[in-house]
Amino acid sequence: MADKQMQNLNKNERIVQLLSDQKAKLFRREYLDLHIHEQAQLFSDLDGTLRSRVYRYLSAEEVGDMFDGIEEEPEDVVRYFKEMPVSYAAAVIDEMYTDNAVDILAYAQNKDLTHYLLALPAERSAEIRELLHYEDKTAGALMTTEYVDIYADQDISSAIQDIRSEAADAELIYYAYVVSSDNELIGVVTLRDLLTNAENTAIADIMTNPVISVPVDEDQAEVAQKVRDYNFVAVPVVDYANKLVGIINVDDIIDVIDEENAGEYSGLAGVDTEETPENPFQASLKRLPWLLILLLMGMSTTSLIDRYEALISQASILAVFVSLITGTAGNAGTQSLAVAIRGLSNSEEDRRSGLRMLVNELLTGLIAGVVTGSAIFLLVGIWKSNFVLGFVIGISMATAITVATIAGNVIPLVMDKIGVDPAVASGPFISTLSDLTSVLIYFNIAHQFLNFFVNH
Amino acid sequence: MADKQMQNLNKNERIVQLLSDQKAKLFRREYLDLHIHEQAQLFSDLDGTLRSRVYRYLSAEEVGDMFDGIEEEPEDVVRYFKEMPVSYAAAVIDEMYTDNAVDILAYAQNKDLTHYLLALPAERSAEIRELLHYEDKTAGALMTTEYVDIYADQDISSAIQDIRSEAADAELIYYAYVVSSDNELIGVVTLRDLLTNAENTAIADIMTNPVISVPVDEDQAEVAQKVRDYNFVAVPVVDYANKLVGIINVDDIIDVIDEENAGEYSGLAGVDTEETPENPFQASLKRLPWLLILLLMGMSTTSLIDRYEALISQASILAVFVSLITGTAGNAGTQSLAVAIRGLSNSEEDRRSGLRMLVNELLTGLIAGVVTGSAIFLLVGIWKSNFVLGFVIGISMATAITVATIAGNVIPLVMDKIGVDPAVASGPFISTLSDLTSVLIYFNIAHQFLNFFVNH
Repeated sequence: MADKQMQNLNKNERIVQLLSDQKAKLFRREYLDLHIHEQAQLFSDLDGTLRSRVYRYLSAEEVGDMFDGIEEEPEDVVRYFKEMPVSYAAAVIDEMYTDNAVDILAYAQNKDLTHYLLALPAERSAEIRELLHYEDKTAGALMTTEYVDIYADQDISSAIQDIRSEAADAELIYYAYVVSSDNELIGVVTLRDLLTNAENTAIADIMTNPVISVPVDEDQAEVAQKVRDYNFVAVPVVDYANKLVGIINVDDIIDVIDEENAGEYSGLAGVDTEETPENPFQASLKRLPWLLILLLMGMSTTSLIDRYEALISQASILAVFVSLITGTAGNAGTQSLAVAIRGLSNSEEDRRSGLRMLVNELLTGLIAGVVTGSAIFLLVGIWKSNFVLGFVIGISMATAITVATIAGNVIPLVMDKIGVDPAVASGPFISTLSDLTSVLIYFNIAHQFLNFFVNH
Repeated sequence: MADKQMQNLNKNERIVQLLSDQKAKLFRREYLDLHIHEQAQLFSDLDGTLRSRVYRYLSAEEVGDMFDGIEEEPEDVVRYFKEMPVSYAAAVIDEMYTDNAVDILAYAQNKDLTHYLLALPAERSAEIRELLHYEDKTAGALMTTEYVDIYADQDISSAIQDIRSEAADAELIYYAYVVSSDNELIGVVTLRDLLTNAENTAIADIMTNPVISVPVDEDQAEVAQKVRDYNFVAVPVVDYANKLVGIINVDDIIDVIDEENAGEYSGLAGVDTEETPENPFQASLKRLPWLLILLLMGMSTTSLIDRYEALISQASILAVFVSLITGTAGNAGTQSLAVAIRGLSNSEEDRRSGLRMLVNELLTGLIAGVVTGSAIFLLVGIWKSNFVLGFVIGISMATAITVATIAGNVIPLVMDKIGVDPAVASGPFISTLSDLTSVLIYFNIAHQFLNFFVNH
C-alpha cells in the first residue's frame, strides 16, 4: 500500500513537472492514463497558471470527464468555469453527466449561467434549466436524466440494441426502465435479466413490476433509506403522474448518506466538521460562532447560579457538586437526544406514537436517574460522611437526569414537527436547558436541607 | 406515499392472515410476489409458529433469496437457522450469497456450524470455511466469492457468453475481472465496455489496466473510502500476490459507511444509538454503563473542586463561574475532537504532519480562546461592575479553551496511533480532562487575585 502510494506520488509530481515544462504531448499521455478520480485530484492541487494550461492541452470533453470525478465542493468547482472561455466551459458542461453539471451550475452567477446555457445545444440547455428548478436536497436535485428506457413490447435483442446505442451517454446501464407510450414507469429489467433469458423473449414477460421508485420531491434522506433497504444500484424518479423523469445512482446516494451523517455529527458537536483546517484563522472563525452562542447560553445558567450566591456563601460545599449534577444530567440529555435524532433519520415505520414514546422515555429517564442517583448518594455519603448531603445530591441528580432525558427526546421531535432540522442545534440547546433545570432543582432541594451543611 | 404505505400494510396483514389460516398456495403466490426486502421485513415480524410454517411452505431456495434481503443483525438471523432441519438450513445457506451467509455463520455455535458445513456441497463448504477466517472489519470479511472472471485472450462475444452462464449465480455482473492463468488480477471490463465494442474485439484491447483493488486485510473504512472516491459499484479484493480472491459490492460498502458513522456518532454522545428503544429497561441498561462511568470521571473534577472549598467559602462569587468555564472549554474540546475524528476517517492524503497540525491547532485554540475570553471579560466586568473578576474569568477561560482545543486534537491522534479506536470513548474522556484542567487553571489564577473579591 504505502509503496504504491509513494509511486503514485512520484508519478503525480512527474506529471505536474511535464505541465510546468509545457510538454503538452507527454503530459496528455501520462495524465489521461490516470483514472478520472486521480486526474481530478491532481487538477485540484494545481495553481491558476497550470490550470489554464490544462484547459489548453486537454479537450473540453477530456476536462468534462475529469470534472465528473472531482471531489471538491460545487461552489469551488464553479470558479474553474470562469477561468475558461465561455464556449469551452459550455463544452465541458455538455460532456459532464447532467446531475453533476447541475450541482455545480447551481452555484454559478446568473450572468455566467445565462452565457453557458446560451452556448449549449438547445436540448441540453433545456434539460439543465429544468433540473436547476428542483429544490435542494430532494430527489429531483439528485437525479440525472441520462438513463436507458425501453418499451414492454420490445424483445430482448432489440432492447439490448437500444442499450448498446445509449450506453456511451447513459450514466448507468445496468437497469433499463420500461415505460408506456406516454412515459409512465411500468417496469424495470436488469442487464442480468436480459442476458439470462432467450433473445426473443418479450420485455413484458421478464420485467419486474411494480417498480420501486421515488417521487421527484422526496427528501434525499428518504431516498437514501430506500436505496439502502433495497440494495439498489440506482432508483428511478417519477413525477406526480408516475412519469419517469430521471434516475439517482448509488454514488450520489453515498454522498447523501455522508452529508446527512456529517450534519447529525456536526450538530452534536456544535461545529461544522467538514471544515478543512487549512489555516488557524479560518478554523477558529468556523468554531467561534457556536462557541460564543454557547457562551451566551451558558451565561443564563451562570446568572441563575448567581442568584444562589448567598446560599453558597452559607454552605460552600454545595458549590462543589454543581458541575457534577449539571454535567451528568447533560450527558443523559445528550444520550437521549442522540438516540432520538438517529430514530428520526430512520425509516418512517420505526417512528412510534408520540405518547407511547414519551412514556417510554420517562421510564428510561427514571430508571437511569434512580440508579445514578443512588450511586452518587452512596459515594458522597461515604466520602463526606454526610448522608444528608448525599441524599440531596442523589435526589437532585435523579430528578435532573429524568428531566434531561425527556427533554433530549421531546425537543428534537418538536423541532422536526415545526420543520426545523433537529440535527443542527439541538445538542447545545439541550445542554443549556438541562443545566438550567438542574441548577434550579439542585439549589431548591438543597435549600430545604440547609441546616445540615452550613459552613462551620 | 402515505396511501401506498397503507396499501402495503394492508397487503402485509392479508399475507400474514393467509399464513395463519394455513392457506399455503395463496400465501406463496402473494408472498413471493413481494420484493425480497419486503419479504424479509414481513418475515422478521412473524412469531416462531408462523416462521416454522414459512419453512414448510417455501423452498430452501426461496427462503435463501429472502435471507439475502434481511436487515436484522446477523446474530439474530443465525437463530432462525436453528429452527430449521439441518439439511434445510444448509440448503438455505447454499442459496444465499456467500458474503451474506458468512456474516451470519460467524455467529453460529461451533457445533451447529459443523453440521451446516457437513451438509453443504464440499466446494461451497470450503469457500465458506475460508471466508470465515478473515478478520472482522477487513476487506476479506466483507467480500463475496461470486464474481465473474474472464481471460485477456478471449474476445467480447465469448466473454459475454461466460457472463451469461455465470449471471444466475454471480452477485454482480456489471464488472468482469480479467485474470491471468494463475488467477492474478490484470484488468477489468465493464458490461458497458462489452456492449459498446465490436463482438470480435479482444478483451486485452479494451480492458482497464491497472485495476484499482484492495488487499484482503485492508480495513473496511479504507475500502469504503476507495469506493467513494472512485464511484465504484464494486471493488476487487486481492491477496498478497495480487491474486483475485473476491469482490465487495456497493451495498455492503453502504453498510460499512453506516456502521462507521454510527460508531463516531455514538462515541461523541456516549451511547450506542443503534439501540432499538423497545422497552425502558433495555434502553436504560444500554445508557447506564456510560452514564456511571462518566459520573465516576466527573467525581475526579468534583474532588478537585472540593480542594478549593476553603477558597470558595471566602469568595463565593468564584463558584458562580465554574460551570461556565468548564462548559465552554468542554465545548471547544468537543469541537476540536469532532474535527479530528472526521479528519482521521478521511483518506490518508488529508492527514498532515503531526507537528504542523499541532501548531495549527494551538493557534486555532489561542484565537478562539482570546476572542471568547475577551467577550466574557467584558460581559462579567460590566455585569458585576468588577473588571478584575472579569479579567480572572476571561484569562482562565482563554487558557482553558486553548488547552481543551489541543487535547481534543491530540488525544484522538494518540489513540489512533496506539491502535485504540478514537471514536469510541474520546468524547467523554476529553470532557473530563478539560474539566480538570479548567478547574485547576481557574482556581489557581483566582487565588492570585483573591483580595479583589472576598465576601464582604
